[in-house]
This record gives sequence, C-alpha cells and structure tokens, in this order.
Amino acid sequence: MGKTIAQKIIAAHLVDGTPAVGNEIGLRIDQTLTQDATGTMAYLEYEAMGIPRVKTELSVAYIDHNTLQNGFMNADDHRFIRTIAKKIGVRYSRPGNGICHQVHLERFAKPGKTLIGSDSHTPTAGGIGALAIGAGGLDVAVAMGGGAYYIPYPKMTLIKLSGHLQPMVSAKDIILEVLRIMSVKGGVGKIIEYGGEGVKTLSVPQRATITNMGAELGATTSIFPSDEVTHEFLRAQGREDDFVPLASDEDAVYDEVIEIDLSKLVPLAACPHSPDNVKPVKSLSMTKVDQVCIGSCTNSSYTDLMTVAAMLKGKTVSPEVSLAIAPGSRQVLSMLSENGALTDLLNAGARILESACGPCIGMGQSPNSAGVSLRTFNRNFEGRSGTRDAGVYLVSPETAAASCLTGYITDPTTLPAIAPVQMPETFPVNDNMVDLPASLDEYEKVEILRGPNIKPLPQAKPLENVFELPCLLKVGDNITTDHIMPAGSKILPYRSNIPHLANYCFEVCDPEFPKRALASADGGFIVGGSNYGQGSSREHAALVPLYLGIRAVITKSFARIHKANLVNAGILPLEFVNPDDYERINLNDTLVLDNVFAGLEGAEIRLSDKETGAEFALKCDISARQAEIIKAGGLLNFTREKTLK
Amino acid sequence: MGKTIAQKIIAAHLVDGTPAVGNEIGLRIDQTLTQDATGTMAYLEYEAMGIPRVKTELSVAYIDHNTLQNGFMNADDHRFIRTIAKKIGVRYSRPGNGICHQVHLERFAKPGKTLIGSDSHTPTAGGIGALAIGAGGLDVAVAMGGGAYYIPYPKMTLIKLSGHLQPMVSAKDIILEVLRIMSVKGGVGKIIEYGGEGVKTLSVPQRATITNMGAELGATTSIFPSDEVTHEFLRAQGREDDFVPLASDEDAVYDEVIEIDLSKLVPLAACPHSPDNVKPVKSLSMTKVDQVCIGSCTNSSYTDLMTVAAMLKGKTVSPEVSLAIAPGSRQVLSMLSENGALTDLLNAGARILESACGPCIGMGQSPNSAGVSLRTFNRNFEGRSGTRDAGVYLVSPETAAASCLTGYITDPTTLPAIAPVQMPETFPVNDNMVDLPASLDEYEKVEILRGPNIKPLPQAKPLENVFELPCLLKVGDNITTDHIMPAGSKILPYRSNIPHLANYCFEVCDPEFPKRALASADGGFIVGGSNYGQGSSREHAALVPLYLGIRAVITKSFARIHKANLVNAGILPLEFVNPDDYERINLNDTLVLDNVFAGLEGAEIRLSDKETGAEFALKCDISARQAEIIKAGGLLNFTREKTLK
Repeated sequence: MGKTIAQKIIAAHLVDGTPAVGNEIGLRIDQTLTQDATGTMAYLEYEAMGIPRVKTELSVAYIDHNTLQNGFMNADDHRFIRTIAKKIGVRYSRPGNGICHQVHLERFAKPGKTLIGSDSHTPTAGGIGALAIGAGGLDVAVAMGGGAYYIPYPKMTLIKLSGHLQPMVSAKDIILEVLRIMSVKGGVGKIIEYGGEGVKTLSVPQRATITNMGAELGATTSIFPSDEVTHEFLRAQGREDDFVPLASDEDAVYDEVIEIDLSKLVPLAACPHSPDNVKPVKSLSMTKVDQVCIGSCTNSSYTDLMTVAAMLKGKTVSPEVSLAIAPGSRQVLSMLSENGALTDLLNAGARILESACGPCIGMGQSPNSAGVSLRTFNRNFEGRSGTRDAGVYLVSPETAAASCLTGYITDPTTLPAIAPVQMPETFPVNDNMVDLPASLDEYEKVEILRGPNIKPLPQAKPLENVFELPCLLKVGDNITTDHIMPAGSKILPYRSNIPHLANYCFEVCDPEFPKRALASADGGFIVGGSNYGQGSSREHAALVPLYLGIRAVITKSFARIHKANLVNAGILPLEFVNPDDYERINLNDTLVLDNVFAGLEGAEIRLSDKETGAEFALKCDISARQAEIIKAGGLLNFTREKTLK
Repeated sequence: MGKTIAQKIIAAHLVDGTPAVGNEIGLRIDQTLTQDATGTMAYLEYEAMGIPRVKTELSVAYIDHNTLQNGFMNADDHRFIRTIAKKIGVRYSRPGNGICHQVHLERFAKPGKTLIGSDSHTPTAGGIGALAIGAGGLDVAVAMGGGAYYIPYPKMTLIKLSGHLQPMVSAKDIILEVLRIMSVKGGVGKIIEYGGEGVKTLSVPQRATITNMGAELGATTSIFPSDEVTHEFLRAQGREDDFVPLASDEDAVYDEVIEIDLSKLVPLAACPHSPDNVKPVKSLSMTKVDQVCIGSCTNSSYTDLMTVAAMLKGKTVSPEVSLAIAPGSRQVLSMLSENGALTDLLNAGARILESACGPCIGMGQSPNSAGVSLRTFNRNFEGRSGTRDAGVYLVSPETAAASCLTGYITDPTTLPAIAPVQMPETFPVNDNMVDLPASLDEYEKVEILRGPNIKPLPQAKPLENVFELPCLLKVGDNITTDHIMPAGSKILPYRSNIPHLANYCFEVCDPEFPKRALASADGGFIVGGSNYGQGSSREHAALVPLYLGIRAVITKSFARIHKANLVNAGILPLEFVNPDDYERINLNDTLVLDNVFAGLEGAEIRLSDKETGAEFALKCDISARQAEIIKAGGLLNFTREKTLK
C-alpha cells in the first residue's frame, strides 16, 4: 500500500511503537526550535537533564515573543537563553532577527526532516515539506537530549487543490476556507496534506501561511509536497543542497479527502471570536475599521508585504485607522528597505514595528475599546488582543491593505488589481544575527548567565512503595490548569521562576495552599474531582505542584494532557476505583498509599485514611513507557538515564 | 541697554507684569504642543473651559509616548485626542509620525515664536530660535484658550562657544559639558542662550540636542540665535518663509557667562544616576555594555542616525549587546530607508523600533538585571529604564555606535573617523500623517470619541466665605505628590480617569481616605505638615483631591509648584500662622473656616475646631492673580471668564 508524505517521513523517523491510527509512536527528531516565552523553561529542563550538548542535527533558540521588555525579566531571559544556547550547542537568533517560524522557513527548515518547536505554529515549516509539530517545552528539551517525541499515530487528510487563485485572493483565503469547512476541531488527531494541481501555483511562503494555520484546525500538523517550487525557494535562499523531493505515492490512502477549487475562492475573513467563524469579506463591507495589523508568522513574508506596499503606494491610510506592520524577519525588512517598498509603506502612514510577533500575542497594539481590528494573524480569541471587547477579524494582507485605505472592511477584488509580486530569484542572506554555539573545545568555559528571576527547576524525589503524607488540598470537579497555575500579565513574566509562581498556585481555590504545602516537610497529596486539569496544556501546572512537594494527585478522573504532564513531572496520577470514595477524604487527613510499585504495573494501590479509618482502592492508568518515566522520577530523569546508558 | 535673544522675544509677547528678575510675567503664546501621556488631561481641561476653537497660531497634538498599547486605554486616549483635536482646531500627528520635539522642529517650530508644550523637553525648539518652554497640561490648555502663560522673569546666562568640534565629538558632548559645569540645578530660574563663533559650526539638529537637555539643567529654557544655518534648515524643510533672523544685541547684559572651547571637548558620558554625573568616555573604557539604545528627542535626527549607520556599515553588533534604534520621526526613517542606511543598520543587527519615545520613557527595552545600558537619551534616573538596578549612561550617537560594536564603553575617537554626515539640501516633506482640524464650517459636527477610561474633569464648586466641614485627612511633614497621587505602571494608564485614580489617592498614608472623602456630602479639608506637595509637578495631585471634595488644604508650609496646582484647581492653600496649631486638629474634627473672602486679600482666616474648641489663624499667601483664580473656581473657569469677556 502506498504512503502519504507524512507516513514516509514518519517511517523514516520511527523509533518506537507501531504505525496504526491511535497507537503511541516515538519519532526521532532532527530539528528543534524554541521561542523565548516557552524557551526559558525548555532550557531549564534541558539543563536539568545534565546532557552537555544537544544531539539534534539543528536546534535554534529564537527571541521573538517578549521583545517589548517592560521590566528586567525579559532581558534576563534573553541573556539566559543566549548563554545556555551557546554552551549546549544551540544557535541563537537574536531579537530583531525575526519571528521563529518565518526565519526557520527561510534559513533552516528542510523537506523530509522532523522538527518540533515549543510553539503551536511550528507546522509553518510544513510549507517546505518538513514534518513540523508544536510541542511542550519539556518535549523539546527531551528531543534536544536525543529522546524520541511521542504522538498518537495520526489519521491522514488530503486537501486537493485545483485551479489557481484569482487576483487579490491569497493563501490566507485558502486556509480560511479550510477552517470554514473543517472547523477548529476538525483537524484533531490528523495530519493534513495538500495535493492536487493547485499546489504548483503556490509559493513556499503561501504554503507556509496555510500549514501555519493548520494549528487552528487542531491538526497534529500540515504538510505540502516538496517540488520544483520548493527547490526554487531553497535555491533563492542559497540552500539548494537542502532540497529533497517529496510526494505522496499514487496509491496512498487518506482517511478523508477535501477538494477545493482555488479559482472559485473569494476573499474571506474569520470573524470574532474564532478562526473558523469564516465569512466572505464582501458580506462585511459596512463594518468600520479602527485598526489594521499586518505581520505574524502567518502573513509577514516578502511577497505579503510587497503586495501591501504596492497597494498602499502613493496613498494615505484612512485618518481613522491605525495601521501597524511588523515584518516577519530581518531578511524581509531589509529587502523592503533596499527596494523602496518600506518608504512606500512609511509614506502611506504605516507604523513599522520591530520584526517580532508583537500584537499577535498581545504584545502591544491593543485596539481601542470595542474596536474593530483587522489582522493578518492566526488567532482572534476574545481578549487575546489585550482589549476585552475588541472584535478581531483574521484576513489576508490584500484585505487588510484595502481596508486600511477605505476605513471599512473592504473586499480587495473591488479595487484595481496590482501586478502580482514575483518571488525574488535570490534572497539576501545574512545570518550574522544567528549566533553559533561554542565549539566542542570551548563550550565548557561558557558561563550561563541568570537573573534573579531565573530559578532552578524543581526535582522529583525517588518513588517509594509506601507514602504516609497529608492531604494538602481538596478541590472539586472540572479544575482547569488556570485554577492550578493562573496566567495573566501579573504572573507571565515569571515563567522561569517556579518558586515565585508557586505563590499563586490554586490562588482562586485556596490561597493558603502554597504555604501549607511548603510547611509539610515531606510534601503530600492533592485530592480532586472529575476532569481534573482540563484547559491549557501549560506544563507549569505540574511543575509548580512538584515544587510544592506534591507526590500524587488523586482524582475521580483526569484531563488527558495534564495527566501526561504530571507523569512527565514525576507526580503519580491516581484515580479512585470507586469515585464515591472521593467523599471519604478530608483536607489535612493523613493518607497512606501502599503497593505503589505494583500499582504502576496495573495492580490496585491501597489508600487508607488514618483520620477516618477509611480504606479503598486507587488505580494508576498509564502506559508502560509512562510507568518507566514515573519510576525514573519524571521525563527528564528518564531521558537522562536512557541517554547516558 | 541691549537685549538678549530671549528678552527680545519676551518683550514682543509680554501681556502682563514687569520684566525684572523674579517678577511674575505673562506671555502671549503663539504655538502649543502636547504629547499623549499628558495630552489627554490637557484636552479634557481645554474642553472644560468651553472655548470652541483654539486661539493660538498653531497647536499640535502628538502621539509618541504611549505607543506600545498594552490594553485598550492608550488606543482610547489616542482616539479621544484625535477627535477633540479635529473639533477644537488642533493638528493631530498620528502615532508613527515621530517624537513631538523632533517633528515640531522639522515642520512647525519658528524662530522668534513662543511655544509651550506639556512635556519638559519642549525647549528642543530653542535650537531653531523659538522661545520654547515645558509646562503643565493646564497651562497648555489655558494657552490654547488664549490665556497668557506665567513665569517668573528669568535670569540670563550666556554660553559662549568658540572653536569647532573634533571628529567623533558631537553636540551631545557639548551639553554634557554644560551639565558637568552647571549641574542639574544650575539652570533654575534662568534662560540659557548660546552664542560665540562656535554657534555657526552647529547644525539646527545639533543645536536642538543642546537646548533639549537644557531641561536637565533645570533651566526655564535654552535658545540659539536664528542665523544662516537656521535659514538653510528651514529652506531644506520647504519652510523658508518661516525664517526670521534673531541675535542678541552687542550690549546685551547676561547675569552669567560660561565659555566653552569646542575644539577641546572630548566624548563624555553622564554616568548613573544623574545627567550631571559627567565623565570622559575614555575613563570608562573597561565597562562592559549589555544594551545600547539610540533615539529619543535628544539624538534621533537624520545626521545622528546617518552617523551611526556609517559607523556600523559592514560590521556586526557585539553578540553580547542588544542595539535598539528608534528613529525620531517618519521623515528621518524614510530618509534612511530611501538611501540605504537603514539596510546598513539592519545588516549590522540593529533592532528597529517604532518612531516614538520608546525606551527613553521606560516604554519597553528595559535592560537586564544590573545591566549597563548606553543611551543617547536625556535622563538616566535610577529605575527610569524599567530595571531598578540597571546603570544607564547618557552618551552621543558616536559613543553609542562605537560601544555596541566592541561590547565595552568605547571612546569613538579611538576608532577611524568617518566622513562627516552632511545636512541634506532638501528634506522629503510629507505631512500626510498630520491630520488637519475640521474647518470652521464643519467642526461642530465632529463627535469626540471617548473610551470607558476617559472621564470628565472634576469641577470646582463656588467659593464660600464660611466653610463648616470635617478634617478628612491628617498627614505629617514632607508629603510628596507621589504620596498624594502615586504613579507606576498600574496607575499610569488611567491618567485620563480621575475617578479611578481617586481610589489610589494617599494610598500609602491612609487607604481609607478616598472612601471617607466621598462619603462626606460637602467634602472637607486636608491637614498637613511642612513642605507639603514636594516632588513631581503632576497636576493630578490637585485634581484628584478636587474630585474627592477637598475645599482647602491647611499646612505648615507648601512646596511651590503644588501650591500653584492647588490654586489652579480651585482649592484653597492655607497655612497656619502659628505652625504649632497643627497639633490642635484631629482627624474627623469638624472645622469652621471664616473670613475666606477677605483672607484672599491678605486678611487672617479664622479656624475653629468644633470638637476641641480650639481657635486660631490661617493665612492664604497667594498673588492677586491667584486670588482671582481661586474666586473664579480655578484656572479653567478664570480663563473662560476672561476669554468670554
């Protein structure tokens, strides 16, 4: 039976498991990337593994998120990442060099390679034919250390493109159409491959726009073939040697096929507050616009911004619109500067922001109250812009440019078409803002610089067969990771400081919990209801309880990702065999867990409550691999042991 | 007797008072400017005066401070300023168009005109021969309404320049030398004029660098002659008609003369944490640098940035230094973009920030912990960078560029000299980001748009001869305006929202005060010790107590500026005739003030405490003009009444 593109790359990188839908498989990872908002923790985790140098073919640490630097914390984090990258063998892309996904596409991503990145839009590199997946910081740390990356073997979806885009309709409209069809849950457990004759009409940056927003489908990743267009792009970037052709077999079998005729697409917009709330732009034409933002890892390539510059040349942005443009990379910005397009943008009244993620992650440029903001970005969740009642519309650069001129949401096909922007034959290559790591002779001398905000990671203690410890917290059903570890602007700058974050752990449920936990010399347990740990996948919701001495979380049931995070942190995730037993434990009761070692193999773990005398059974429902992780004291130790062996 | 330049401009604009040192004089104001951090309040104050259209020759509202926009408040403020400017006859310089002082110098400032601006660096325009003074928002509002601006008639200082600057020594080094000589208090009550043969060797932007930092001397303002250099600059900006020659009379008398031989100057740096802690750069050459920032209203002109670009061309910024450049105006940035210099800066690794104040006002780019930051800015106060323990050095663009390459503080004269940058014969003029106000036919239809954060100003109630009200707060000696109205990142976005700010009034002294004051139907009094209201000149420290119902503040003594602010807000500033009487009043006592009307003319005001039975005398030590202001219910009402008459 023939293989899809993704199946071929998976087969070439499979190190564990059997490739059948739903099975857990382990992949060898060729490349990793981090950004600075998640990177600090990833490198602390890497450091804790004790592996001197990364084992990947290429790892890059990008600085693109926390570039506003209000307070010392961000600059300290950047310095930490710079110095540890140098020491452990990771390239360091300095602030101002651009957005990780854009720069990685330009300079490093390769067809046929596996890439994981501690950012959900890592699939951008699927536009060049890489199997690129967004992952947690710890996953990336493990991959840098040479460990496999585990995913459930995905279903395969083919999106078959025919025809070609009409003038002023763009790649963004293609992915918005896919979102309209599939919805934000439509990609879960799937890899989306693009095929058909229409693929040839799309440049690599256009393809990357599409795979980038595969993240909004919930897909594992998205991928394009590697073909002559890919070859040309790599040649223009001075990387012809990185080219390999990639295509699915003729008899490849897909679980699902969706057909899109590019010729019939019209400009689309994802309306507030979901990327799949997609409508034709022309149906929104009475909507007054307050702000337009162009950039982000979705739409900040050379051709995107040249298109905008051509549309704005000689015109002036409506006085009632603020237009902000953040070029995707220094390469893009210097090309615009060199060829006069930047002057055209400035003359039209664009605010040129630093080449970084910027407003896409709520770093500045929050719209006015109840404002309408058109953005070429990938997410329009309520409040993400920093203005709770703003309405964000996700659109193409063409729609953004047309609308900033008129002051209303404007279908760009109603304006005179501009000449299509050609891909340059050669990109100006200048990697002097990507610092190389220290050589093998030199790296031991590199000093890792930390600020007062960067604290060591908590370490898991050895597993025991019997625990006698207090119940330090009892909470109800549907506890989210936001309950466990709140976010928000007050707390986010401290993401590399677990001891500080610990002060806020379960703040909304029981503000005394952190103090109580720290006062218990040998730690203790948390008891929870059903669906414990739902919501955001943040690993801090496991690391902070680990710091506070939590050895086991005992619940009626767990949300999937948080349970995995507990295992990775070395905390036992235990469930009541009889959920009613939840009622029989009280806060501060001394609990005895017995038979833990056998419990990891599937036996019952016995719990007795020394206060009430109650005795009952718990189960630890994890995979054999996860049992090994728990025994090793968490994924870091597990990986270290395996690697050192 | 001959006149100085400033004396001539004052004489031509004198509308009140006698020109003799120390006398209060009133000046007719030709031009005003505001920035967005102070502008919102200034326009609310203007609006409260009820004068439909401004009476100045030119008023401009700039957006340059709050350009990061973390949250809806800044964008709402910008929208408010845009719409009210359009209505009342003020030009609106959109965000991205540049820093107020740089843009005003390029496009609007005129020799011989008076300018006040709600920003302390307004004297920048002294570089072109304007009499330009930094003022409070209310002062600017009054001037826009046609009222005079009052200052004590200043002493005159002449700084006589001879010779010419050596290569790689710059205007910044001149003003740093002046600061070294005079100190940060040396300019108080003075206007600093520059003269001598050396003046001819300095371009208008160089002169503006010098007058800009006259603010750091504490001077009323600084001014240069208007000569052929000024003429050339105005011609290059397409404003030849704005030129008038200006020079001091040969027999002009100065209170003080300081001579500086430009030929002997070396590169200087103001070391942490004061602009007058000046040392030769070469004495600092072992200091490792973490960050370099280039820009601000002091050093962001075309020639400044072209010099930096020439020094960085073909090189790479040290990997251990973060270099951020914020061009001073869109004109400057588009010139750099047009001629390739921006590409040189990008290729060297500069982070290009939006054309705005940026890091100079702590809006981003905070250095790392204990970091060393070299900045071409004007202030290096402890913590102003956003990093409490950072050390900021104020230097020239040449020193900044040299140091970012080496990673250490570096005397630029030790590097090969670059060819001096020539002033362009023509600047590209594009005023499309300065919105013109509505015409006289149209302005009534303009709707002023406010966000939920923009609240109306508090209004003073009519003065009474007898008050019977409670003592709502009693505080000790040396209360600062920071005690009265705290600042900081939590509170600053609310500067246009007096009711919200009121929650924080006297927070550190007595957090119950706002509630207690609001609960008192007719308001009450504050009782304080000596030196009440010292520190920052913020007018909020008077407006917020006004909102809270305060009718009089009774103290042992006042700091000068805060006393004036109380008068302007319509609050009685009263002092104990016998300071020991302070002890005889308790919190919540009901106090009766009697004979208030006569008190404004110099008679004693009687105070009796209904709880203790104590009776004693107070005085109201204000000028006749101030008495009229109090009677009118504050400066706004006073101006409105006078103007309507």
